[in-house]
Amino acid sequence: MRIIVTNCNTTQEMTEEIVRGARAAAGAGTTVTGLTPAWGPASAEGWLDSYLSAAAVLDTLRTYDGPGYDAVVLAGFGEHGREGVRELVDVPVVDITEAAAHLACLLGRRYGVVTTLDRSRGQIEDSLETAGVARNCAAVVGTGLAVLDLADDVGRTEAAFLAAAERARDAGAEVLVLGCAGMTGLQRAVGEKLGLPVVDGVAAAVKLAESLVTLGLTTSRTGSYGTPLPKTRLWGRPSGESQGDRSSGEPGGALS
Amino acid sequence: MRIIVTNCNTTQEMTEEIVRGARAAAGAGTTVTGLTPAWGPASAEGWLDSYLSAAAVLDTLRTYDGPGYDAVVLAGFGEHGREGVRELVDVPVVDITEAAAHLACLLGRRYGVVTTLDRSRGQIEDSLETAGVARNCAAVVGTGLAVLDLADDVGRTEAAFLAAAERARDAGAEVLVLGCAGMTGLQRAVGEKLGLPVVDGVAAAVKLAESLVTLGLTTSRTGSYGTPLPKTRLWGRPSGESQGDRSSGEPGGALS
Amino acid sequence: MRIIVTNCNTTQEMTEEIVRGARAAAGAGTTVTGLTPAWGPASAEGWLDSYLSAAAVLDTLRTYDGPGYDAVVLAGFGEHGREGVRELVDVPVVDITEAAAHLACLLGRRYGVVTTLDRSRGQIEDSLETAGVARNCAAVVGTGLAVLDLADDVGRTEAAFLAAAERARDAGAEVLVLGCAGMTGLQRAVGEKLGLPVVDGVAAAVKLAESLVTLGLTTSRTGSYGTPLPKTRLWGRPSGESQGDRSSGEPGGALS
Amino acid sequence: MRIIVTNCNTTQEMTEEIVRGARAAAGAGTTVTGLTPAWGPASAEGWLDSYLSAAAVLDTLRTYDGPGYDAVVLAGFGEHGREGVRELVDVPVVDITEAAAHLACLLGRRYGVVTTLDRSRGQIEDSLETAGVARNCAAVVGTGLAVLDLADDVGRTEAAFLAAAERARDAGAEVLVLGCAGMTGLQRAVGEKLGLPVVDGVAAAVKLAESLVTLGLTTSRTGSYGTPLPKTRLWGRPSGESQGDRSSGEPGGALS
Amino acid sequence: MRIIVTNCNTTQEMTEEIVRGARAAAGAGTTVTGLTPAWGPASAEGWLDSYLSAAAVLDTLRTYDGPGYDAVVLAGFGEHGREGVRELVDVPVVDITEAAAHLACLLGRRYGVVTTLDRSRGQIEDSLETAGVARNCAAVVGTGLAVLDLADDVGRTEAAFLAAAERARDAGAEVLVLGCAGMTGLQRAVGEKLGLPVVDGVAAAVKLAESLVTLGLTTSRTGSYGTPLPKTRLWGRPSGESQGDRSSGEPGGALS
Amino acid sequence: MRIIVTNCNTTQEMTEEIVRGARAAAGAGTTVTGLTPAWGPASAEGWLDSYLSAAAVLDTLRTYDGPGYDAVVLAGFGEHGREGVRELVDVPVVDITEAAAHLACLLGRRYGVVTTLDRSRGQIEDSLETAGVARNCAAVVGTGLAVLDLADDVGRTEAAFLAAAERARDAGAEVLVLGCAGMTGLQRAVGEKLGLPVVDGVAAAVKLAESLVTLGLTTSRTGSYGTPLPKTRLWGRPSGESQGDRSSGEPGGALS
Repeated sequence: MRIIVTNCNTTQEMTEEIVRGARAAAGAGTTVTGLTPAWGPASAEGWLDSYLSAAAVLDTLRTYDGPGYDAVVLAGFGEHGREGVRELVDVPVVDITEAAAHLACLLGRRYGVVTTLDRSRGQIEDSLETAGVARNCAAVVGTGLAVLDLADDVGRTEAAFLAAAERARDAGAEVLVLGCAGMTGLQRAVGEKLGLPVVDGVAAAVKLAESLVTLGLTTSRTGSYGTPLPKTRLWGRPSGESQGDRSSGEPGGALS
Repeated sequence: MRIIVTNCNTTQEMTEEIVRGARAAAGAGTTVTGLTPAWGPASAEGWLDSYLSAAAVLDTLRTYDGPGYDAVVLAGFGEHGREGVRELVDVPVVDITEAAAHLACLLGRRYGVVTTLDRSRGQIEDSLETAGVARNCAAVVGTGLAVLDLADDVGRTEAAFLAAAERARDAGAEVLVLGCAGMTGLQRAVGEKLGLPVVDGVAAAVKLAESLVTLGLTTSRTGSYGTPLPKTRLWGRPSGESQGDRSSGEPGGALS
Repeated sequence: MRIIVTNCNTTQEMTEEIVRGARAAAGAGTTVTGLTPAWGPASAEGWLDSYLSAAAVLDTLRTYDGPGYDAVVLAGFGEHGREGVRELVDVPVVDITEAAAHLACLLGRRYGVVTTLDRSRGQIEDSLETAGVARNCAAVVGTGLAVLDLADDVGRTEAAFLAAAERARDAGAEVLVLGCAGMTGLQRAVGEKLGLPVVDGVAAAVKLAESLVTLGLTTSRTGSYGTPLPKTRLWGRPSGESQGDRSSGEPGGALS
Repeated sequence: MRIIVTNCNTTQEMTEEIVRGARAAAGAGTTVTGLTPAWGPASAEGWLDSYLSAAAVLDTLRTYDGPGYDAVVLAGFGEHGREGVRELVDVPVVDITEAAAHLACLLGRRYGVVTTLDRSRGQIEDSLETAGVARNCAAVVGTGLAVLDLADDVGRTEAAFLAAAERARDAGAEVLVLGCAGMTGLQRAVGEKLGLPVVDGVAAAVKLAESLVTLGLTTSRTGSYGTPLPKTRLWGRPSGESQGDRSSGEPGGALS
Repeated sequence: MRIIVTNCNTTQEMTEEIVRGARAAAGAGTTVTGLTPAWGPASAEGWLDSYLSAAAVLDTLRTYDGPGYDAVVLAGFGEHGREGVRELVDVPVVDITEAAAHLACLLGRRYGVVTTLDRSRGQIEDSLETAGVARNCAAVVGTGLAVLDLADDVGRTEAAFLAAAERARDAGAEVLVLGCAGMTGLQRAVGEKLGLPVVDGVAAAVKLAESLVTLGLTTSRTGSYGTPLPKTRLWGRPSGESQGDRSSGEPGGALS
Repeated sequence: MRIIVTNCNTTQEMTEEIVRGARAAAGAGTTVTGLTPAWGPASAEGWLDSYLSAAAVLDTLRTYDGPGYDAVVLAGFGEHGREGVRELVDVPVVDITEAAAHLACLLGRRYGVVTTLDRSRGQIEDSLETAGVARNCAAVVGTGLAVLDLADDVGRTEAAFLAAAERARDAGAEVLVLGCAGMTGLQRAVGEKLGLPVVDGVAAAVKLAESLVTLGLTTSRTGSYGTPLPKTRLWGRPSGESQGDRSSGEPGGALS
């Protein structure tokens, strides 16, 4: 089977890292195809980035014209969009946030999430809540590292993860979740040092996607996730207009 | 003061209707400026539309270069984006979904929402939950009418609203909320027939926005809603590429 | 419009302070009338005081014979009575507890309340819960100061507030609420020092009351808040009997 | 031991009925003393009545000068005041609302409450919630009968109870609770007809009060229920002023 | 890898049916070994059966002396024991109740469970709650069929399932779960008729167990699920004493 | 009346201690009969022990052939089985876990549980949750002492309890619960030192059982707790097979 794994940001190196993680988890008969959105944020860190990412990921999948696929894995931890992708495609869709939580629930009575910046904690909590798996989440803890800084210095990342993991454990976590797609690969090293199972969302999502495909299950079209209604939709500014926002997050228009 | 009211879709007529409702509610010293996104869905009905709308609304506000403003009202009932806008601008941001619920909580022990299609119910429930005001929501009920059909036949819309309202009342609702920006103006007629207070989110959001501005309050920058970090962001496909999706919601790529 | 603001205790100076805060928040066309109950506790600190206050406030409004009014603001933070007043009068009723929480929810993902004595925390938590706005409350924290001591030494009050605010912030609060009507006026000073928005319930309630009046909304009579049924009610001991309790909270009758 | 059982209203006949029920449940060594408040509502039906009742019950206990007592039972189903009484007296305090729910939880997985007017349902739900026993409550259902009408026609009362009980059972109730002190005595007749255990709150509260006294347990003074602070409190209007409200629940002062 | 699948009852035919379902779901490299407890109930229908089953399943796994294994699947829907097995063995343990719910959460916004007798509903609800996946469960509905009657008449079983499924759908379920291991195999037929995805817990648990094994994840030993402490344990009556209970569920000793 | 009090483990000394505690709490006309299971764990510390204990306790009650009895008290704090016993016998069944919580709720706004090993905390939390009394539980805290070590050194036990109690108090507990049947008798000593009411579950359960018997109330047979269905059940291995597990909790069969 073929699984599409979409990065949530435009950073090609991160897609490659995610695809490596996905392939390491995938079964023998599974082909993993990575997609990097042609637009969106260079990294998703906050709500604005997350909503921009959601639209870009949807657009990427909408206009994808490669070989057919059997499932979609959304590789943005805590990012928006999964319900929209469930409407868009006819195959199973698994978000790495919920995937990690589903497996973590099987491994201990309470789990904790260790993520990047503190500002991402709220999105993750909300995402777990609406996915229906927040009940046994003991804590979502930040390391203080930005998404694109994770790969810079593996030692620093590991140390920051271990420090945050202690706080999650103090809050009752018996299992940990890597709270960023960019942490993929870290699970073995930190798991051994902590003496706790550590779940990587990318790997978890690949296994859940394979499971659904094997069992012939896909998204229900009854109720929430019906096919999008036919209508006019414009996916970005009419051409010719400026679309870049390369230098700053500072808006200019507000008065106060 | 000036309040920006953003429609969540590209339908100009609906912006005009929303602005009419907003002006009817606004105080003497308040100027209401309506914004229609240059891209996005013609109407938001489902998760895909909602995420597309969120990015388009953010882009619209990001590139707005008109006169300064004191508050933003987001006029998409149950649509995504409010947290991102709170990061983006320095002025208070009020979403009509939460606004209607806040006022409804003051008017009865339980409230109900009457919306358009059943498929929108889930988004509204999630939006109320994360806004912190779902506890006293007795029911979210659909009328079966699409967003752009609401204005076609006022009698039909009113009848459908009344039928759905009965179901909300049976579930315990003592107050009703108009669950679509396109229902603005309906509150008086149906309120009288039902003998219940009916809250319009657009009007509610204008009053809450005015309240926050008058009290000198704006979004906290500590924790969740910090200013977006400086980074590269592309708001739509590189120019020249096709962006339209004018005929169908059917994706083509999935295998099964 | 005219808004009646009722103090929850018999201390006239506190009514005056509350009225000053209410007037500072009120719009140009709003007249604020303060009411001090003729009976009840000198300050409300605990459940017994709160229930005594609730009856006294109801009696005060029941027997009010001044000019007509358009809304009632109940200025006792965490005190009981709001549902009874909703039954009693035909105009909108806003309690400062819920009002502050409603606005706080619009300003951050989690809010905290800083109040007087620790013993008041439970009442506030229950009041937020039944008002339907507790979900996003991160903490209710006491300063250790009694209600009538707040005004004695502004410096001490401010310092105690800031210390308690730190604990609320550690618990996740991104916005703070002044948890006592007697703190009205403190919001600007502590807000600047904390770098967080601080909501005063009196001001919030005035704006919400004005909003409801402007929108023509009032309490639903269907379900919970029907008009009180006609029946014999005695509002206090038959005359001639002792009513004072001026020296002590110690009951005498219990055995053990 | 001596248990004080306070009626929540001024209707002496109802106190007598409650005392009969309490005595039927009490152990051999227990003396039951009934108290009727000297003021308050003739029956408690709604929030205004409930708050008036709470103050009157507190005043009744505060000024009680009879023989010492070992526990207090508050015989108003869904009425306010229990936390205040816990502050006031040094002996255990049991409210019939919570008492019935505590025993009902031991008899089935879900229980239901059958009460008088629908308008009382909200108060009962809130009272169960804050008492910590709402989780297993499947439904609170009204019979449509007023408190003082219960005794008029036992056949009608029984029939109305049975009809409401069916609705509670459909909602999942496996045990029923008599939702009004005035229903005391009904449990045996309806229990047999329904084939379900039926818990009377007055009887339940007497047994729980006896249990606490026997075990030497009383209210914690740490935290919420400290002794009331010494201060000036006026329990009712200064003498000479009108206190009666004998004819109507209609307030006069509101504008609209 | 080898997965042990334990039936929760002593009925060998049902083990065979379960093993067939497990093998149909298992990957190419997976060996499924079925275990039937040597003691316990012939079918688990109610709490007494469930607790008896839990001990028997633990004993069966404790004394198992066949080839080594990589994971355990517990094939009793809603039955107790999973946490104990997590303590007992060093390999991943997946219960079919939680497994079905985890996959169902990925396929729709709300799921429903269709089970055998109504008396089993409570256990299932509790099992989903403590597993952390109850939040998105819309309903647990009984078919009225006993466990061992499911196989008697496939047409009747299917019809009863479809009728119950309608009730689950009315309650908001967008996905269905087969609420008994004895229903394994039914998913395809009823899924087509309902137009909804139907999840079989046995199949789901096999895929989740394979996923955990492949990812090198197993139960956390920190906190709840530590290895059982060394101590004396007797797994059944000393030999010679009667152990059978072949004729009746009626206890004899109670007085009343 | 006669109350059967079942120990949850096979340690006769502990049964005697429990019976002493039960008799100290029982009324004049109550006879307490202690039962020690003939099989099961020497002490229950963890889920495996708890499920083994549940079956053994059920078997003990099923085969009991002594004098008739009026109620059953289950004296295993946090242990499983209560719902099964409710199905089995026709008389009221009270578990000490829920019993302590029910009384604790009457004594303060929040209660805390102090138990033995940390590994037991999860079971207790789940037991309180499904019993419907978890809402007001502020914390479940471990002392680090094993069940059978409690009696060794009363001073050590008391010191460990007091240290754990401080943590519960910091979390908001106003009342404490002894979280192990083996702590019975400790309540008075630690209660005085802490200045808080301390509830012993054995005593609480005896009083609740007496209360239910006196009021003529017993378990509902409608819904969850119907009489067990007639069927073949084997309560332990066929005779001749080894049943002991005297030396170790280490399973042997797992691969990894």
